[in-house]
Amino acid sequence: MTDKNSNIEELFMKLNADNAPGQESRQKNNELKLIGDKIEGEYVDFSHGDVDAHKPIPGVLDHYIDGFNTGGSQAYTEYRGQAELLKETAEKLGSFTGTHISPEDELIITPGTQGALFLALGATVTFGDKVAIVEPDYFANRKLVHFFRGEVVPVQMDYLNHDDKAGIDLSELEQAFKNGVKVFLFSNPNNPSGAIYSSEEINQIAELVSKYGVTVIADELYSRQLFDNREYTHLIAHPGVDRNKIITIIGPSKTESLSGFRLGAGFGSSEIIDRMEQLQAIVSLRASGYSQAALKSWFSEPEGWMAERIESHQAIRDDLVTLFRDAGYKVRLTEAGSYVFPQAQNLSIDDVQIAKILREQANVAVTPGTEFAPYCTDSFRLNFSQDHGKAVDAVKRIIKVLENYKNG
Amino acid sequence: MTDKNSNIEELFMKLNADNAPGQESRQKNNELKLIGDKIEGEYVDFSHGDVDAHKPIPGVLDHYIDGFNTGGSQAYTEYRGQAELLKETAEKLGSFTGTHISPEDELIITPGTQGALFLALGATVTFGDKVAIVEPDYFANRKLVHFFRGEVVPVQMDYLNHDDKAGIDLSELEQAFKNGVKVFLFSNPNNPSGAIYSSEEINQIAELVSKYGVTVIADELYSRQLFDNREYTHLIAHPGVDRNKIITIIGPSKTESLSGFRLGAGFGSSEIIDRMEQLQAIVSLRASGYSQAALKSWFSEPEGWMAERIESHQAIRDDLVTLFRDAGYKVRLTEAGSYVFPQAQNLSIDDVQIAKILREQANVAVTPGTEFAPYCTDSFRLNFSQDHGKAVDAVKRIIKVLENYKNG
Repeated sequence: MTDKNSNIEELFMKLNADNAPGQESRQKNNELKLIGDKIEGEYVDFSHGDVDAHKPIPGVLDHYIDGFNTGGSQAYTEYRGQAELLKETAEKLGSFTGTHISPEDELIITPGTQGALFLALGATVTFGDKVAIVEPDYFANRKLVHFFRGEVVPVQMDYLNHDDKAGIDLSELEQAFKNGVKVFLFSNPNNPSGAIYSSEEINQIAELVSKYGVTVIADELYSRQLFDNREYTHLIAHPGVDRNKIITIIGPSKTESLSGFRLGAGFGSSEIIDRMEQLQAIVSLRASGYSQAALKSWFSEPEGWMAERIESHQAIRDDLVTLFRDAGYKVRLTEAGSYVFPQAQNLSIDDVQIAKILREQANVAVTPGTEFAPYCTDSFRLNFSQDHGKAVDAVKRIIKVLENYKNG
Repeated sequence: MTDKNSNIEELFMKLNADNAPGQESRQKNNELKLIGDKIEGEYVDFSHGDVDAHKPIPGVLDHYIDGFNTGGSQAYTEYRGQAELLKETAEKLGSFTGTHISPEDELIITPGTQGALFLALGATVTFGDKVAIVEPDYFANRKLVHFFRGEVVPVQMDYLNHDDKAGIDLSELEQAFKNGVKVFLFSNPNNPSGAIYSSEEINQIAELVSKYGVTVIADELYSRQLFDNREYTHLIAHPGVDRNKIITIIGPSKTESLSGFRLGAGFGSSEIIDRMEQLQAIVSLRASGYSQAALKSWFSEPEGWMAERIESHQAIRDDLVTLFRDAGYKVRLTEAGSYVFPQAQNLSIDDVQIAKILREQANVAVTPGTEFAPYCTDSFRLNFSQDHGKAVDAVKRIIKVLENYKNG
């Protein structure tokens, strides 16, 4: 809930990032009551992808070095990005999403997709604004709304019981819009479940945001890595959507393994992009100028590279999902991206304890379910962009360790 | 002034970045009444330094390439930075400022010094908080306070009439503190004037912030590039300052010409650093992991490199200041950093018009004075980290063009 008088300490209590992916080494483990032994095995950090197992796009370092050698014009770009790269990237993203993107007015390059998300929220949400957030969805979404003093209006997604649609509760979404929601933020494919919104769901979302004049931020970070030849519908290409009210965000950090460069992009409403750039000017000026040169690799991967990447991830997914299901976990078969979000059954411990215990006894890092929705206390997320064999071994350890914590 | 009910459009009207350095190409020049001819000459962009004329630290690209080749552990660091680099950087910054910095708790690596500034303000300023800001000072300072819904309390600095101290009005500062200022943000050396705060001024600031329990954010971005063997006093090393209430920010973007990597640092209060990291987690996750490897070059420049850099900049400064003074401008002799902030006399045009006219008729970019203080309508800032000869020619053009716009 929004509190107009909350001071800075209260504000930051809600932003606590100690359980966020990548921060595990800062946690203290003093209060754990461990049952059973530690199982030895090679460490797997499922909180993010392993760019050593799935390497960056070949040739990307050469683009970077060229950028560095270009000198001043690459170091100091406009806040929204270097003009030629904006042009090239607008063409690529336009072709990918099936829409025309003006490189001058409708695109901004950001420090990672997280940067695009921050700027998009900061450019659209202020004190007291209601923001519809899907449960479960990316953990930063609710924190961002909180930071900008908006109010989270949760919308449920029945992600475990569908495989032909995401399972968002569209009547709850409409009710939220009726109740004055100003911005709707959602990830598609959904993070953490790996669900893809069906074209019917996207059509209905397009109708609803148009009917109620809601601004949409569509996080499509994982939309290139589609399994089983699934279809994907880009909301921004829907004819019913008001272009001035939509921002799509995306970046090369995941499927393309370019996270180390911190590159992302936001495109859509020129008005919102303008504000995002104004905000960028005081947040970090620009995405690293030299890093921007690495964008040349994006959507220009070598022939067959993306197909191989999808195939190898699909094979890992199949093995992990089978392991979890055979052990009695409920888990959706990831349709896109590289997350699985298993729900454990009958455990005596909650998700935060699960994560700590798995770190201690299974030598793996996972992300607790409540980072994604308050009710996901029995779930945890794994990024399966890992070495295939190590990931399989690690999931076997996870299952074995958690057996010791079953009820009854 | 703060307005609790301001909507997002009103918020962003005050953040307008069209006149900010580097954004000149986005301006429209339709309303200019030009007097006299355009003077031909090679373009100089005085809005920022020229890293082609003053190149990055030798060997920095090799550190970057090593970082890239290190792979996953360099791509995905903790949000506050890679542990080994934190250790190395804490030692270097501690030695530079004469204080001990705990690498685990008192240091964060950020996307540029701008990133450190944003995080430091975001971690200390919230709705209605009073923030003391020096006039003139870095243009983003006031915008940041505005963005975080604080209230700017201006404190004057008589920068034109001193050369043995910055000239901050300490009684006005104390009055501001008495009136409830929570945070004091200032750059030392001062941007845009190049003034250094004397040790006596720093002592008095230390006493005042201690007496009134004010949090200080000290922007020391340019504190390595000192001219004429000037002395410099780091506030954080003052024994009277409460360590929990100070954050110093600094980075290798200016003197070291590493801006293209987007690297900065904040150090001091562990409590504030914790909050800065929590904020970083939702702003951009971390400074580019690969870029962080470039920090190995910082404070490890080749023998004589820094001395040469200071000498060459001092020579440019001398020529530009002489040119401006001979033409009747008031200008402080830069004591540190690479800015001059000349005040024109008897012009019929204001600072924003000056900048636009100089772009059209002198082929140079400068930054309007009102970006730094509302009253600096007759001033403009130049970053003289440029090719020496081109900078001299450009300033001659500036002086000649502006002669046409004199009153009477």
